[in-house]
Amino acid sequence: MKKIKIPWAKPELGEEELNEVIDSFKSNWLTMGPKVNKLEHEVSIFLEVPYAIAISNGTVALDLVLKAIGVEPGDEVIVPAMTYFATASSVSYQNAVPVFVDIEKETFNLDPDRIPEAITEKTKAIIFIDYGGNPSNYDAIAKVGQKYNIKVLQDGAQSLGAFYKGRPMGAQTETSTMSFHAAKVMTTIEGGMIFTHNESLKEDILSRRNQGESKGGKYIHITLGTNARMTDLTAGIGLAQFKKLPVFIKQRRRVGEKYNKLFSQSKDKIFFPKERVDCKNAYFFYPILVEDRDRVSYVLREKYGIDTRIAYPMPLYKQEVFASGKLKYRKMECPIAEEVTSKILNLPIFPSMTDDMIEQVCRAIFKEIEK
Amino acid sequence: MKKIKIPWAKPELGEEELNEVIDSFKSNWLTMGPKVNKLEHEVSIFLEVPYAIAISNGTVALDLVLKAIGVEPGDEVIVPAMTYFATASSVSYQNAVPVFVDIEKETFNLDPDRIPEAITEKTKAIIFIDYGGNPSNYDAIAKVGQKYNIKVLQDGAQSLGAFYKGRPMGAQTETSTMSFHAAKVMTTIEGGMIFTHNESLKEDILSRRNQGESKGGKYIHITLGTNARMTDLTAGIGLAQFKKLPVFIKQRRRVGEKYNKLFSQSKDKIFFPKERVDCKNAYFFYPILVEDRDRVSYVLREKYGIDTRIAYPMPLYKQEVFASGKLKYRKMECPIAEEVTSKILNLPIFPSMTDDMIEQVCRAIFKEIEK
Repeated sequence: MKKIKIPWAKPELGEEELNEVIDSFKSNWLTMGPKVNKLEHEVSIFLEVPYAIAISNGTVALDLVLKAIGVEPGDEVIVPAMTYFATASSVSYQNAVPVFVDIEKETFNLDPDRIPEAITEKTKAIIFIDYGGNPSNYDAIAKVGQKYNIKVLQDGAQSLGAFYKGRPMGAQTETSTMSFHAAKVMTTIEGGMIFTHNESLKEDILSRRNQGESKGGKYIHITLGTNARMTDLTAGIGLAQFKKLPVFIKQRRRVGEKYNKLFSQSKDKIFFPKERVDCKNAYFFYPILVEDRDRVSYVLREKYGIDTRIAYPMPLYKQEVFASGKLKYRKMECPIAEEVTSKILNLPIFPSMTDDMIEQVCRAIFKEIEK
Repeated sequence: MKKIKIPWAKPELGEEELNEVIDSFKSNWLTMGPKVNKLEHEVSIFLEVPYAIAISNGTVALDLVLKAIGVEPGDEVIVPAMTYFATASSVSYQNAVPVFVDIEKETFNLDPDRIPEAITEKTKAIIFIDYGGNPSNYDAIAKVGQKYNIKVLQDGAQSLGAFYKGRPMGAQTETSTMSFHAAKVMTTIEGGMIFTHNESLKEDILSRRNQGESKGGKYIHITLGTNARMTDLTAGIGLAQFKKLPVFIKQRRRVGEKYNKLFSQSKDKIFFPKERVDCKNAYFFYPILVEDRDRVSYVLREKYGIDTRIAYPMPLYKQEVFASGKLKYRKMECPIAEEVTSKILNLPIFPSMTDDMIEQVCRAIFKEIEK
């Protein structure tokens, strides 16, 4: 196998992050404490949301939010047909039923027009994501939620750094989640966060994060919870990363826009998702659609040393765990998700990616799709 | 409030742990990788179990084991009436029903004689713990499990360093769990592990730890999972701790036995749990029973600067989350758990606790219980 010259993603961790860790060791405080509080405070200000709750990871964040809003066995929750598994599996974690709805052709995000036909009397919530950091049509989704009186949640695992009509993505819904996994826009290695505008939901989630304990009542349990705590050890890494976040966002946009330009100008048109008017893409992914995707991906790696991902290889209802009937689900017709998952290819994108690297990737793709 | 002179617990973290973390930063590998593998390997050898799976924490470890053995909504799982909340809440996490059974007077562990009357056709498993590191009557519990054909699981959150008939506690059942929380015998700050003798269970749990992904199939999901991964960042801390484990175990036994001696020799007899024949207590907790426990705990802290815990303040079925009917449960008569939880007090115990400190604690207690 050829040595990878251009990776798909590259966490940017350095002296600042290590110094935070050393500081935690010196202070002898490594479990959840002051650094977790500080990270929650700083990110909540950035996101313009009053309450932030640091969580062990983004998947567990979704689990706790669904519990907090009262999703129960047998309830239905609408999710996009093309998203990371956790968006739907967190619904299954409640013994509830994910209902897969098709995506928009232009953004790969949940299509608001397809939601109403999926709603039943069992529908408890709608979860949307911002695929690859590209904002969803939030206003239209919110309108559907209002009309049918169904809660709308944002799974913001890919959204950090995205903006919707001037506000950070994640601030729009009553409650949203975020991921700080190592591959994400900023990282705590593993980690995530829940944001909410609702004080009583905040209190409920704080308790659920810590084994359902009551505020200040050690070994007194008032609700169903788990251990979903973030540690000060990793929150320190997050604090150092957060200082670099403006640069990370700027650099990702530079890379994304350069790709856009190269793909737009070429005679061999390559489809890539479009930024919604009044929105800013965080460029967590840089996805394109290509025919003969599996061959292109293979050749990029083997011949050019360019690493790619296929996110995601199928609509979630085709995943064995659903298709086999092991987990309950319901699906609507999803022709767009079927097509996009058959052609999607996620190209390398990371803050320190040079213009030269971007050009190398594009040249290789143009050369290979001609075949 | 008086400054604490003798803490309840004290993690022993030093240069070795920090050096492992620095090493992870230098290698640029911080997510789950070689250090997690190494920790799994080393602990599995110590525990004499073929397969070890590092998990984000001990509570999530229980959750995954219950999923792996197929505990489903409405199933019943027998648990001790006096244990940490997670033993029972992990059952509730499956929408299953914890059934609380009384404990033994001598060890505070699940009483094997009280299990049969709790068994119904819905009983799917029996979970036992080794309270405070003091081994349960495993053979008798296993016999009940065999007789009724019900799986027996060990929640070994408190068991590391305990031995049962010459074998490490955790090796006995087909599957067991462990916690490496900061307060535990050894730590990865937050973290835990699952052990199993069953290869297909191991494969199943490996998948569930990583979002139900198939082996080597990125974004291919074959079962219900979550993000339960440990990071190399914290596994490194575990590797440094593991080297010190023999010393930690030896020192905890020194402290425990010194307490035993002082409490046995005094005219003011204090009840403490007894080590089972052929067993070794890991002395994670040092619990005693005292009348007027809440006053004694308060006075020890305020007057003597001695920190204690009350583990646990009530049988779990009295916790609001169960008692209110929010979570389903069933309970048997539990007079011992009722009595023990009304009198239990957990004294300071940690490897670097000096003989002088132990004597201070005992003197204070004898002085205060006379009142």
